[in-house]
Amino acid sequence: MLNSPLVRKLVQLALEEDILFGDVTSQCTIPEGHRSRARIIAREPLIVCGAPLIEVIAKEAGWDVAVEVKAKDGEELVDQQPIAELEGETRHLLSLERTLLNFLQRLSGVATHTRKLVGEAGDVTILDTRKTMPGWRVLEKYAVRVGGAQNHRMHLGEMILIKNNHIDAHNGDVDSLFRQIKETKPWYTPIECEVRSLEELEKVLAYKPDFVLLDNMSDEMLEKALSRLSQLGDGAPRAEVSGNLTSERFKALNRIGVQCASMGGLTTKAVNVDISMRIAKA
Amino acid sequence: MLNSPLVRKLVQLALEEDILFGDVTSQCTIPEGHRSRARIIAREPLIVCGAPLIEVIAKEAGWDVAVEVKAKDGEELVDQQPIAELEGETRHLLSLERTLLNFLQRLSGVATHTRKLVGEAGDVTILDTRKTMPGWRVLEKYAVRVGGAQNHRMHLGEMILIKNNHIDAHNGDVDSLFRQIKETKPWYTPIECEVRSLEELEKVLAYKPDFVLLDNMSDEMLEKALSRLSQLGDGAPRAEVSGNLTSERFKALNRIGVQCASMGGLTTKAVNVDISMRIAKA
Amino acid sequence: MLNSPLVRKLVQLALEEDILFGDVTSQCTIPEGHRSRARIIAREPLIVCGAPLIEVIAKEAGWDVAVEVKAKDGEELVDQQPIAELEGETRHLLSLERTLLNFLQRLSGVATHTRKLVGEAGDVTILDTRKTMPGWRVLEKYAVRVGGAQNHRMHLGEMILIKNNHIDAHNGDVDSLFRQIKETKPWYTPIECEVRSLEELEKVLAYKPDFVLLDNMSDEMLEKALSRLSQLGDGAPRAEVSGNLTSERFKALNRIGVQCASMGGLTTKAVNVDISMRIAKA
Amino acid sequence: MLNSPLVRKLVQLALEEDILFGDVTSQCTIPEGHRSRARIIAREPLIVCGAPLIEVIAKEAGWDVAVEVKAKDGEELVDQQPIAELEGETRHLLSLERTLLNFLQRLSGVATHTRKLVGEAGDVTILDTRKTMPGWRVLEKYAVRVGGAQNHRMHLGEMILIKNNHIDAHNGDVDSLFRQIKETKPWYTPIECEVRSLEELEKVLAYKPDFVLLDNMSDEMLEKALSRLSQLGDGAPRAEVSGNLTSERFKALNRIGVQCASMGGLTTKAVNVDISMRIAKA
Amino acid sequence: MLNSPLVRKLVQLALEEDILFGDVTSQCTIPEGHRSRARIIAREPLIVCGAPLIEVIAKEAGWDVAVEVKAKDGEELVDQQPIAELEGETRHLLSLERTLLNFLQRLSGVATHTRKLVGEAGDVTILDTRKTMPGWRVLEKYAVRVGGAQNHRMHLGEMILIKNNHIDAHNGDVDSLFRQIKETKPWYTPIECEVRSLEELEKVLAYKPDFVLLDNMSDEMLEKALSRLSQLGDGAPRAEVSGNLTSERFKALNRIGVQCASMGGLTTKAVNVDISMRIAKA
Amino acid sequence: MLNSPLVRKLVQLALEEDILFGDVTSQCTIPEGHRSRARIIAREPLIVCGAPLIEVIAKEAGWDVAVEVKAKDGEELVDQQPIAELEGETRHLLSLERTLLNFLQRLSGVATHTRKLVGEAGDVTILDTRKTMPGWRVLEKYAVRVGGAQNHRMHLGEMILIKNNHIDAHNGDVDSLFRQIKETKPWYTPIECEVRSLEELEKVLAYKPDFVLLDNMSDEMLEKALSRLSQLGDGAPRAEVSGNLTSERFKALNRIGVQCASMGGLTTKAVNVDISMRIAKA
Repeated sequence: MLNSPLVRKLVQLALEEDILFGDVTSQCTIPEGHRSRARIIAREPLIVCGAPLIEVIAKEAGWDVAVEVKAKDGEELVDQQPIAELEGETRHLLSLERTLLNFLQRLSGVATHTRKLVGEAGDVTILDTRKTMPGWRVLEKYAVRVGGAQNHRMHLGEMILIKNNHIDAHNGDVDSLFRQIKETKPWYTPIECEVRSLEELEKVLAYKPDFVLLDNMSDEMLEKALSRLSQLGDGAPRAEVSGNLTSERFKALNRIGVQCASMGGLTTKAVNVDISMRIAKA
Repeated sequence: MLNSPLVRKLVQLALEEDILFGDVTSQCTIPEGHRSRARIIAREPLIVCGAPLIEVIAKEAGWDVAVEVKAKDGEELVDQQPIAELEGETRHLLSLERTLLNFLQRLSGVATHTRKLVGEAGDVTILDTRKTMPGWRVLEKYAVRVGGAQNHRMHLGEMILIKNNHIDAHNGDVDSLFRQIKETKPWYTPIECEVRSLEELEKVLAYKPDFVLLDNMSDEMLEKALSRLSQLGDGAPRAEVSGNLTSERFKALNRIGVQCASMGGLTTKAVNVDISMRIAKA
Repeated sequence: MLNSPLVRKLVQLALEEDILFGDVTSQCTIPEGHRSRARIIAREPLIVCGAPLIEVIAKEAGWDVAVEVKAKDGEELVDQQPIAELEGETRHLLSLERTLLNFLQRLSGVATHTRKLVGEAGDVTILDTRKTMPGWRVLEKYAVRVGGAQNHRMHLGEMILIKNNHIDAHNGDVDSLFRQIKETKPWYTPIECEVRSLEELEKVLAYKPDFVLLDNMSDEMLEKALSRLSQLGDGAPRAEVSGNLTSERFKALNRIGVQCASMGGLTTKAVNVDISMRIAKA
Repeated sequence: MLNSPLVRKLVQLALEEDILFGDVTSQCTIPEGHRSRARIIAREPLIVCGAPLIEVIAKEAGWDVAVEVKAKDGEELVDQQPIAELEGETRHLLSLERTLLNFLQRLSGVATHTRKLVGEAGDVTILDTRKTMPGWRVLEKYAVRVGGAQNHRMHLGEMILIKNNHIDAHNGDVDSLFRQIKETKPWYTPIECEVRSLEELEKVLAYKPDFVLLDNMSDEMLEKALSRLSQLGDGAPRAEVSGNLTSERFKALNRIGVQCASMGGLTTKAVNVDISMRIAKA
Repeated sequence: MLNSPLVRKLVQLALEEDILFGDVTSQCTIPEGHRSRARIIAREPLIVCGAPLIEVIAKEAGWDVAVEVKAKDGEELVDQQPIAELEGETRHLLSLERTLLNFLQRLSGVATHTRKLVGEAGDVTILDTRKTMPGWRVLEKYAVRVGGAQNHRMHLGEMILIKNNHIDAHNGDVDSLFRQIKETKPWYTPIECEVRSLEELEKVLAYKPDFVLLDNMSDEMLEKALSRLSQLGDGAPRAEVSGNLTSERFKALNRIGVQCASMGGLTTKAVNVDISMRIAKA
Repeated sequence: MLNSPLVRKLVQLALEEDILFGDVTSQCTIPEGHRSRARIIAREPLIVCGAPLIEVIAKEAGWDVAVEVKAKDGEELVDQQPIAELEGETRHLLSLERTLLNFLQRLSGVATHTRKLVGEAGDVTILDTRKTMPGWRVLEKYAVRVGGAQNHRMHLGEMILIKNNHIDAHNGDVDSLFRQIKETKPWYTPIECEVRSLEELEKVLAYKPDFVLLDNMSDEMLEKALSRLSQLGDGAPRAEVSGNLTSERFKALNRIGVQCASMGGLTTKAVNVDISMRIAKA
């Protein structure tokens, strides 16, 4: 996944924006050919994510840097614990430092934030959303998995997710909507319907969607919705809950028996964690 | 700036990762040729940033969407206030929705966070760092300016910033370091030296750097450093402060007379703000 | 879909390989500024496909060519029937001629071949495969839909399709295989299992796949397999048939009640249809 | 030739369209680090073409796959005969399988179809045309050579090929047309004229083209045209025949003494041949 | 030709290297929305070349600049004569100024230098070579034509040009060399042979090349070579002269009757001419 | 620096324009697998520049060519002295020959021209300008340094350089201009002001620019300007001289005490030097 053409393009963009005109500091201060070892370490407790990218980045820069990864993605590290050791020309190590750290700090930030929420969620499986940093879809979805949550849609071509806007385009005629879907959808593409009330739920059940998205419902309404679905047995759509999901509410969701909830905050409310690089003469 | 080739590449990447294989929901649920108006609105108090990007994104997608911007970048909006109005084919509007919002939410998030810190900083000018989201350097630096802070280096080719690592590569021989700089640096490139003690400050002053970076100093040490610099009159390097900058500490910095401080947190600790899009039939 | 970044890259590649160094014939024989009208017509009975691409190609070439499409994709045309009319500089029209025709001839070839097979298939829905011309995935899948068949997977990221190779990697331990899937698969991703005998079918049913692929089965075995699936009611996986699908066999499949069959030959056995361009002075 | 930037771009496009979002099946079913050997084999008698591409594709994907080619491009293989053996991570082999086969099946399809026509053509040298799959110009022209035929123009910048359209742009004034050519054409660029009758042939001979294209002529007319050209001795233009070339007609062309004929069908009427990949544990 | 994908890529590269991080001067000194007119003028007598590129460059930058071209490529201008007038936002005009001038100064430099040599050459047609600025092949070949000379090969795929190195690879066995050519060369590709003596000339004539390149020959030897070729009548290869071509020598070449000579110096010895841009308020 | 993404893009463009459709001569004349050694040598006295690019170019072409560099960039070579030795397949060496030489001849041409001017300049440090070949900014600035001069601005994002046009946009109100700069400029960006008279100099000194550009001044005026600046002591802006700088004038500039002068001619008046490649059997 970290080898996807999309990831390589982002890495190229990151290198372009920082070292397109070289690193004037390294070129003017580091003697040519000077070599060093560098150690990348955690500077606070964190879930590490992105370590395999270090080698991808160095290679994309076209530099010969030896990388030894010291921590597996998903591992919980304490302050000062090593993530990787690098060896190469000092100029190259210094020129790469900020780009490497910027990737690791963000990805580990998402993984750390996710792990915390997964811990609070109990038996509820947490899903991400498409609310990711533009350009970072593949990487942030990876960090979410490393953090212990699961991925919802990767992109708009994978799943039909029906919301009010789509029903409105048929002037509220759900029958007309599903006729169009039936005529045009790829054979295997799953269908999910967002519903905001028990009435809406009842209405869409007739069309046998694969998933229903119970959006912004109260605990009480959720309980009734799940109970209605359980009557349908094996053929029932699977239920996903969304909206208004605070850490505090997970207890209620566990009690009600919610199996799956999606949270945009996995990625939109994550902040970078602290990771740094230390240089020592080779 | 928002027209930079680097920004256009990020926008392309963002569109590729979301709609490379089309938007199966829109294609299967929205009648061909159906048109709508859409309104992008703030969903919480925020400093808006990125509004001019909306047109860039729609154009890059190759779709004919009319955009009317309702809020100028840097404006302070309240919940429900409009940012822009769009008009076009409903399929296009829905396919663009998430990409547009992801850009606006992040950029406005950085601008909002920056504005808050600028408010706390009093007379201290805040600078950003190169700790930006990889691929987003130009955009996040723009958001920082929109938020009211100033930009430090855009990339590694612009300024010589000497830290311990560079001195270590000369085995601590500062004379040897500055000899190499003098022989190789471009004529106009400014030089900044990081110092962590008054002794280090004294040592580098001999080489007349353009700027000194007073890193991780106590209030008392800062006071002495600034006093030393003021003795040098017009030819003195300008001072930048960094490290350990909490909101609480700004009062002290104002009292001491610090003019300028850089904070990685402008970008690394910003989170998305809430912005959404509402569709109405055209 | 025809606006996908992938399609635009293929169009660029097609223009590069033909007119990278200009069109020496047009430049040396057509007077500067000379204008013409051109008509693209069918030269044999065919299902037209790709007409909306004409404008995309002319635009990508950077030339101002007016395009009036005369036939809707999917329409059945007879010899000499017009597909589109173009108007512009004669040099531009001649330089684009071969590229336009090469796209239309292939796409219409796939649509025409598909339509013929769909006609023979009766009530069996035909699906395509990933056996498409490299670089043409989005376009050939579009031509298949235009021809009246449906799309199977667009790419490797959309669906889990388990074959013998995957079971072998677990030394035949299907339990171990599904444990790995359960732990790692994205929430909504559908699962399909290929089976080649009734024993294999029975074995995988325990894991409730969304689809089963009945590969290379005799009519008799297919009949038994479908009968077994029908016992499972609403929760039964949907069945897809593949392998050894000649036009002659569709009668049997209809009799047995097969609903869905995939055929690589939709794309691998299609040949170009004849389409040409006629120039007349503007 | 297979290393051309154009080929590498097509390979990248092919990988993007299939594994841009990874291979969810391999990732969820193959244990990490599991290795296999794979054998690519012919599944019907064929002329192999594209074997050197296997390594190019694996390298472009960024994966470490050892490739041992077992059959030289142009070799005639029988069913089950090996084309190449691969060794690497099972995930990588499975993710590459379809892309590798799609390239080999098309290129070997063109080479096989070409070889058959070359066999029927006797002493007539067969040339291809520019009627190639968009994006595939360099590759299909290579497959034609591998099949035993020769290449006509690679692209529009190489040769002046005068048809009726070009004469019409001078309102039929051939003198005016050749004046423009003489003033503007690159020094070494060859000129070919298409003629459809003996009168047209006579008219263009005055301008000493390097080649004449005898289009859609009857056997009788061809005989007269060749006889006229032979009167011109060493300075005569070389003749190419085109139009209406069925396998059956080659006997007549051999009798008449036609040396060279171009056939669009080499590429437009070729279909994929059957090639598959078998996996075995490493 | 100026619309070739290769030219557009060079223009993109030129814009990237100059305004990737914006134009800090314009942004900090020109009031937003301020508009101007600009006039591009010759600052010395010159042959103008590249005027149609101005619009291409402005468009590639994504800016709305109105361009009125005042001088046709190939026109001879005196000091102060206008080449084009532009109108648009002052920021855009200033940001484009240097890139526009750098293109025009080089291309007009090549055209001016070429025109001078063409004037000295009398009846000898001058050809260019592949000694062009990397990245500028299409543009410099265009400037050569604008200057009045003709183009030799555009790239390595167009013509077989045999030199000593190729004969050496066959250990001097010219027969073996031409056997390989006969078996592998595309049907229409012309053959040129470089010869340095009358003996070498005689040897290659047996193989009927389309062109001979008489390299570094004395006037006397040239005279004999041309006389030998004239004996061959209509079937004789055309002769190109190269090597040691100073302005002074053209008189001798005219006397001897040389028709065609190639000079690397057209492009390698050209220097920029002076062109500048003047801004006036709109 | 030679590893910058910008340089790699130019190298790709150079390879595309020459060998996109292969090297028909090498393919048709050199036996497959034939290997050679090649030596790149100076053919006139020159300052070598670009030797490290040889390996970059061969690698970008995707060919396995062993490169041994024999001369360090900046070294002064005499006719026949070696620059590098290459070893690889003869086809690859011949296909790369022209591209390698075109890069080396231009870069060494700029370095040689620069070295000559530096020699004439005495104690005056020479700076380049942005008048570089489009696409070549990074490379020509590198050649200037190799030749012994220094670099002025690399691109428009690095420095504020105020000319008349900028003052005119404020209707001559310098105060208004500097207010805008103060509000918007990045913290560290240096400011340079162009002045053409002592009055203009006096006016801008009030705003404490970092540099002043004394443009087109007579020796007498220059002397007065420098004398005025020296009164300001340590805080004085550094002075750069430009305009009308012939070799002859450097004596006067040395006498006056000018420290620094910029010359567009470093790059606009440089011509290629002669470098060639000799092949010998491996």
